[in-house]
Amino acid sequence: MTPRVVELIERKRDGGRLTSDEIDALVQGYTTGDVPDYQMSAFCMAVVWRGMDAKETAALTAAMVRSGERLDLSRFGRVVDKHSTGGVGDKTTIVVAPLVAACGVPVAKMSGRGLGFSGGTLDKLESIKGYRVDLTTAEFVAQLERIGIVVTGQTADLAPADGKIYALRDTTGTVPAIPLIASSVMSKKIAAGARAVVLDVKVGRGAFMKDLTSARALAKTMVAIGVAHGLAVTCELTDMEQPLGRAVGNSLEIAEAIATLRGEGPADLVELTRLAGAEMLRRGGRARDRKGALARIDRALEDGSGLAKLRELVAAQGGDVGMVDDPSRLPRAPRVETLRAARTAYVARIAADEIGIASVRLGAGREKKGDPIDHRTGIVLRAKVGDQVERGEPYVDIHVAGRPEDADAIALVHRAFGWSPRRVPRRRLVLGRIASRPAA
Amino acid sequence: MTPRVVELIERKRDGGRLTSDEIDALVQGYTTGDVPDYQMSAFCMAVVWRGMDAKETAALTAAMVRSGERLDLSRFGRVVDKHSTGGVGDKTTIVVAPLVAACGVPVAKMSGRGLGFSGGTLDKLESIKGYRVDLTTAEFVAQLERIGIVVTGQTADLAPADGKIYALRDTTGTVPAIPLIASSVMSKKIAAGARAVVLDVKVGRGAFMKDLTSARALAKTMVAIGVAHGLAVTCELTDMEQPLGRAVGNSLEIAEAIATLRGEGPADLVELTRLAGAEMLRRGGRARDRKGALARIDRALEDGSGLAKLRELVAAQGGDVGMVDDPSRLPRAPRVETLRAARTAYVARIAADEIGIASVRLGAGREKKGDPIDHRTGIVLRAKVGDQVERGEPYVDIHVAGRPEDADAIALVHRAFGWSPRRVPRRRLVLGRIASRPAA
Repeated sequence: MTPRVVELIERKRDGGRLTSDEIDALVQGYTTGDVPDYQMSAFCMAVVWRGMDAKETAALTAAMVRSGERLDLSRFGRVVDKHSTGGVGDKTTIVVAPLVAACGVPVAKMSGRGLGFSGGTLDKLESIKGYRVDLTTAEFVAQLERIGIVVTGQTADLAPADGKIYALRDTTGTVPAIPLIASSVMSKKIAAGARAVVLDVKVGRGAFMKDLTSARALAKTMVAIGVAHGLAVTCELTDMEQPLGRAVGNSLEIAEAIATLRGEGPADLVELTRLAGAEMLRRGGRARDRKGALARIDRALEDGSGLAKLRELVAAQGGDVGMVDDPSRLPRAPRVETLRAARTAYVARIAADEIGIASVRLGAGREKKGDPIDHRTGIVLRAKVGDQVERGEPYVDIHVAGRPEDADAIALVHRAFGWSPRRVPRRRLVLGRIASRPAA
Repeated sequence: MTPRVVELIERKRDGGRLTSDEIDALVQGYTTGDVPDYQMSAFCMAVVWRGMDAKETAALTAAMVRSGERLDLSRFGRVVDKHSTGGVGDKTTIVVAPLVAACGVPVAKMSGRGLGFSGGTLDKLESIKGYRVDLTTAEFVAQLERIGIVVTGQTADLAPADGKIYALRDTTGTVPAIPLIASSVMSKKIAAGARAVVLDVKVGRGAFMKDLTSARALAKTMVAIGVAHGLAVTCELTDMEQPLGRAVGNSLEIAEAIATLRGEGPADLVELTRLAGAEMLRRGGRARDRKGALARIDRALEDGSGLAKLRELVAAQGGDVGMVDDPSRLPRAPRVETLRAARTAYVARIAADEIGIASVRLGAGREKKGDPIDHRTGIVLRAKVGDQVERGEPYVDIHVAGRPEDADAIALVHRAFGWSPRRVPRRRLVLGRIASRPAA
């Protein structure tokens, strides 16, 4: 095999194309260990450089799916998944998955951990004492059967090639390649048995995609992969210049998610929840049109059935439901530092990346894989872009654990805010949408 | 170290520059094993993509030199080395090294093996029964002291980083990057104690560099590295569209080298020998001007002192000097196939790469590292570009061992020749020269 692999690397390096069979051989070889890490990392760098066309990208996705087990969830009807490319303060899954499940669409979600300034759903859920994120495939399926919702970590037997390639990319500077990002996301969704996926590609300084052009390219690639594999896919492009919602940090975000399910969420998070939830209902075949879908989501928000479903989810996965009932029991930082406005002004900017980095400094996130995190710490934005803050009024709370980096984190939060004496428009949340044709 | 390495890879990937300290840390880390293969291969691919500037390239060379021992040969005066970037039929070292040593300039040469269509000096020398290419450093120095000439393989303790990186590049499609090629060549020369180097960058279809522009870029880079390390460097750019000389294949090339030292060499090989030899004398400080240097080389060709020095070299390294005295005793293929001209015509083309590939098929070269080779087989060009061949006259001999690939090899040789009914000019051998300022 080895000499042929060199030829594949060379061809990609020189801007050529690989056949589906060649890509499959490469991926299966890498999974079994016949292709060594050092060849795969060189190949990935060549892909960062030269890209992959739609056919190659679909083949790469298929190869990663084929590298492991593929769940057949067809007996549950049209199982819907969602995915966000990651940002700061993005707790949407924890709100929207229970709402959609409460509306009768099975939600089977495998989430990830946070890294760098991006938070991770698993870390957030682990703020709830006892919540298990390591379900086996059997447990995953049994729970979906029983309560219609699962939110857990990815099991090792699904798309193992993706797990292995992802870990390699992370240490070799080969993360930023649209075909690699798109196939990584989609292979997991396909292997996990989803029939429909609602994607949220974040755009802005707190996201992986910094501009709308590259975000659109990623979205198109993911939709095309979905179509090639018979999935219905909707991809929203949403703003990540400022953090989503008000809370950044694990416990703080769980508390905000619960508040949102109680009808007390911040405007942008509610907007995104309704949008994504309605689309999941439509794509899951439980609503014919947008209006009807939105009405069902709104009902699940108002009648408490969404919150009840979250409670059920937490109970099923071993979490302390008392913390859902009384979020004040969630882990809390020992001290809160509050910043106050030096003069009356409008918030013009809250740099999501800097807020994200500050949260890492506070212990709420991790610099590198495997680092422990502190579920208690984080940041709560009392004002968002467009809000006016009076002189001397608080505009942000920083929940600190008393570590040496706290002062640095506070300075970062301070710097993340930009001010204007004149009125500033609120930021538009939804920047675009790319979708496959309506599923039959 | 690991997280920092990722940042270095990312910076190079994004087209940035590394400092000398960063490059040194990367190379030393790779040598010790702290930096894994998969990071180094991704880094190399980023260098293939983005390149390295002169300062980075000099730093990379210095780091590879620093990774191991550096020979101090200063007590021998200005030791001169030569290097060819590799081609088909290039036995120049075996002719020129003895000539130069016979003129009193110490020649300490570490050579390589053949790979693909390029032959290797070590393989050729091993056609001589008993010739050892694995001298220890102590043997290397002692022999240089005793007879003023050594031609052996690279010892593992010189520039070990280069050996390790080179092996990695070979399997990861990261060979074709001028900074990597240039630093690989020059680090070995510097570590081996050379004070002056005469380089021969081959240009054309039988060479690594296919066009004059890229060959010139490689030459400039190598000269700049030499200057940065205090070495006198001359780089000739020479034609490799057709093979050099007439013989291609190990024993056959040794026989041609001996014939050349007897004053019976083919015109192009003699021309290159005189050119490189004279330059080595100049750079070694034994001749003030070109004319005087050429006269000394010519004398060593005529008076047999060059041949005597080759005999001394072979004897010193355990080889059968009887084969030097009587080249008909060199290993011989059992059969010779001869191709004859279908009509009277001029040779317009002898594709060096196809001749090289044919020689690999005949067993004279290797597809991949470690493959055994057959020292007996090869090709002898009876005509070269510009020669006229009469209808029915032989124009090439193919020395075959009777393997299944022979027919294929013969067809390749046949195809490598292009013909013209009209007169064709001979090819110009020397295409350019790039050199550092005259050494003090």
